[in-house]
Amino acid sequence: MITVLSGGTGGAKFIQGLARVIAPDELTIIVNTGDDLTWWGLHVSPDIDSVNYGLAGLLSAERGWGIEGETFACLEAARHLGLPTWFQLGDRDLALHLARTEMLRSGKSLSEATAEITRQFGITAAVLPMTNDRVETRVLTSAGELSFQEYFVRERYQPAPLGVRYSGAEVAEPAPGVLRAIAEAEGIIIAPSNPITSVGPILSLPAVREALRKTQAPIAAISPIIGSAAVSGPAAALMRCAGFEVSFRGVAATYADFLDVIIADQRDAGSARSTDVFVQFCDTIMVSNDTKDALARAALSALDRARARELALVDSGASVGASS
Amino acid sequence: MITVLSGGTGGAKFIQGLARVIAPDELTIIVNTGDDLTWWGLHVSPDIDSVNYGLAGLLSAERGWGIEGETFACLEAARHLGLPTWFQLGDRDLALHLARTEMLRSGKSLSEATAEITRQFGITAAVLPMTNDRVETRVLTSAGELSFQEYFVRERYQPAPLGVRYSGAEVAEPAPGVLRAIAEAEGIIIAPSNPITSVGPILSLPAVREALRKTQAPIAAISPIIGSAAVSGPAAALMRCAGFEVSFRGVAATYADFLDVIIADQRDAGSARSTDVFVQFCDTIMVSNDTKDALARAALSALDRARARELALVDSGASVGASS
Repeated sequence: MITVLSGGTGGAKFIQGLARVIAPDELTIIVNTGDDLTWWGLHVSPDIDSVNYGLAGLLSAERGWGIEGETFACLEAARHLGLPTWFQLGDRDLALHLARTEMLRSGKSLSEATAEITRQFGITAAVLPMTNDRVETRVLTSAGELSFQEYFVRERYQPAPLGVRYSGAEVAEPAPGVLRAIAEAEGIIIAPSNPITSVGPILSLPAVREALRKTQAPIAAISPIIGSAAVSGPAAALMRCAGFEVSFRGVAATYADFLDVIIADQRDAGSARSTDVFVQFCDTIMVSNDTKDALARAALSALDRARARELALVDSGASVGASS
Repeated sequence: MITVLSGGTGGAKFIQGLARVIAPDELTIIVNTGDDLTWWGLHVSPDIDSVNYGLAGLLSAERGWGIEGETFACLEAARHLGLPTWFQLGDRDLALHLARTEMLRSGKSLSEATAEITRQFGITAAVLPMTNDRVETRVLTSAGELSFQEYFVRERYQPAPLGVRYSGAEVAEPAPGVLRAIAEAEGIIIAPSNPITSVGPILSLPAVREALRKTQAPIAAISPIIGSAAVSGPAAALMRCAGFEVSFRGVAATYADFLDVIIADQRDAGSARSTDVFVQFCDTIMVSNDTKDALARAALSALDRARARELALVDSGASVGASS
C-alpha cells in the first residue's frame, strides 16, 4: 500500500504514472483542499478534480487542468450575464461541481462526496481530501491578502508573495482514513507539487505532520524545483518568501522533520551538495506516459532503498545514478 | 401600455410577435412561476426563461424551450455522475440558472433577479414574475401528487390528472408592479397558455384576480384550445379534470369573472354557440413570424373593439370574421 500526498497539476500527472506501475487499488492519495473555492455557488475542489480526472484518463494534457476536449459554452454565456469568469469552468467539468455541491448540500461530507465521485469515474484508488473542514490557503502579497485562486488564477501570480497562511488549519481534523493511510502505508510519496501551497496545506494539519513524523513507512518527496526554478507555477517565489532555498534541497528542507529521501532531477546531479536526507536523481519532467511511469518507478525504487537503508548520503560532489 | 399574463411555450411565442407589433417598452408581461423548480441546487424559472429567450431572439423554435443551437455537454456528463437528468438544462441555459441562483443567494428577490437578467439580454419589455413568494403548482394524478415538472416533463403527462392545487397561493403576494400593471394597462391579454397550469397559478393569487375584476382595461384571452384539443401539451385533460369544457368556450369560462373577449381559432368559427363573452376568430397557430405578428394584431384589435364595445355577442350559429 502506497500513500501519496498531492496537489493538482504535477501531482495529478505523477499519479497517472503511479497508477499504471502499481495496482490502483493499492494506492491512497491524500489531496490538498486548501485551494478549494465556492464559485458560482458551487463547491470546487480543483486539486481533487485534477487527481480524479488524471486517474480517469480525462485530464487535459494541454492545459494540465480540466477535461480533454472540454467545451466552454456555459462560461461564454455566463460572461454575457455578468457572472465573474476569471476562474474557468468547462461544461463537463461543471457537472462535477454541481454533483458534488448537491452531495454536500444533502449532508454528505467532502470525503463521502469524493468517494462517490471516484466510484462514478471507475477509479479504484482511494482519493481522500486532506480534511472535511475548511482550511483556506491565503497568500499575503504586495497587492493584499488573496485566496490561492485569486493569487494564482486571477492575478496570474504576478503580485510578489510575502507570506502564506493556512486559515483554519489549527482546528481542522484530518479526513477519515488520512492518518491511517499514513500510519499503515508501506511507503509514502510527496508528489512533485508546490511545497508551500499544494503540500503545505496538508502538512498544516498538526495531526498529519505528527503522523508523518511517527510512521514506520519510508517517505520520499519528488522535487518540483530543478536548479533554482519551478517546473511550473509560482513555487520558487513562494518558497523564497517562506524562507526556503529555491532548490531540491530547499524542498527537502520543507519536509526535513519526516523525509527519508528526496528525488531530484538528474539535471541537478552535478550540483549535489551535502544534505540531511538521501537523494536520488532521475528525470522528473513528465512529458509522456513513459516519463511519468519512469518517475513512478524511480519513486518506488527510492522507497525500497530507503526501506533497506541502501541509499548513501550524498556528499559534496558525489554523484548518484538515476534509477530510471 | 399593454399587459400580458403568460406561461411558457405558447405565451413566449405570442409575445415575440407582440413585441414586434408594438414597442417592447410599452409591454409588461406577468409570468407564471408556479412551475419553478430547484434543479441541481439551482433556481429554475422555466416560464420566465422562455419569455426572456423569446424576447431576446434566443428561443429554440424546434423545441419551444431553451436556446436555439444549444449544446448539452454538462447534461451528458451529469448523467454519468448520477445526477437526475429528466429535466434538461443546456450548457448556455445553465449559465442563466447559475446567475439567477447567485442573485437570489445574495438577497435579491426574483423580481430583481429577473429585471437584471432582462437588462443583460437587452430586453426593454418589463418581465415580472407573478410573485416573489413560493407558489407551487401541484398536480394530483392517478400516480400520486406531482410537481408540475414531474407531471409534465418526467411523466410526460401520462398519468391521468385528477386535480390541481396552487400550494402557497393563499398567502403569496403579487410581485412589485404586478397589480399596477393590471390596474393601469390600456389593455390586458391572456396569452395562449394552459388555463389551468400556466395562467391558473397567476390567477390563484387572490389580489391578482381581484385586480383583473376591477381594472378598467379591456381583457382579451387567446384560446390554446382548438375544437376540443389543445394546440400542445396536456391542457385538455387538465381543463376536463378542473370541470371545464374542453373548447374555447371552456377557456373563456375559466376567466369568466373578468374576461371581455375570447380570441378563438378560425377553425372554430362555424361551431360558435352562445357564450357570455365577445368572441373573435382568427388564425391562432403560430408557425411563423408572420402568423405570430398577425395574432398579436388580432389581439390588439380585439382589445380596441372591446374598448369601443363594437363587438357583437356571438349568438348560436352566428359567424364573426377574423380581424387579421
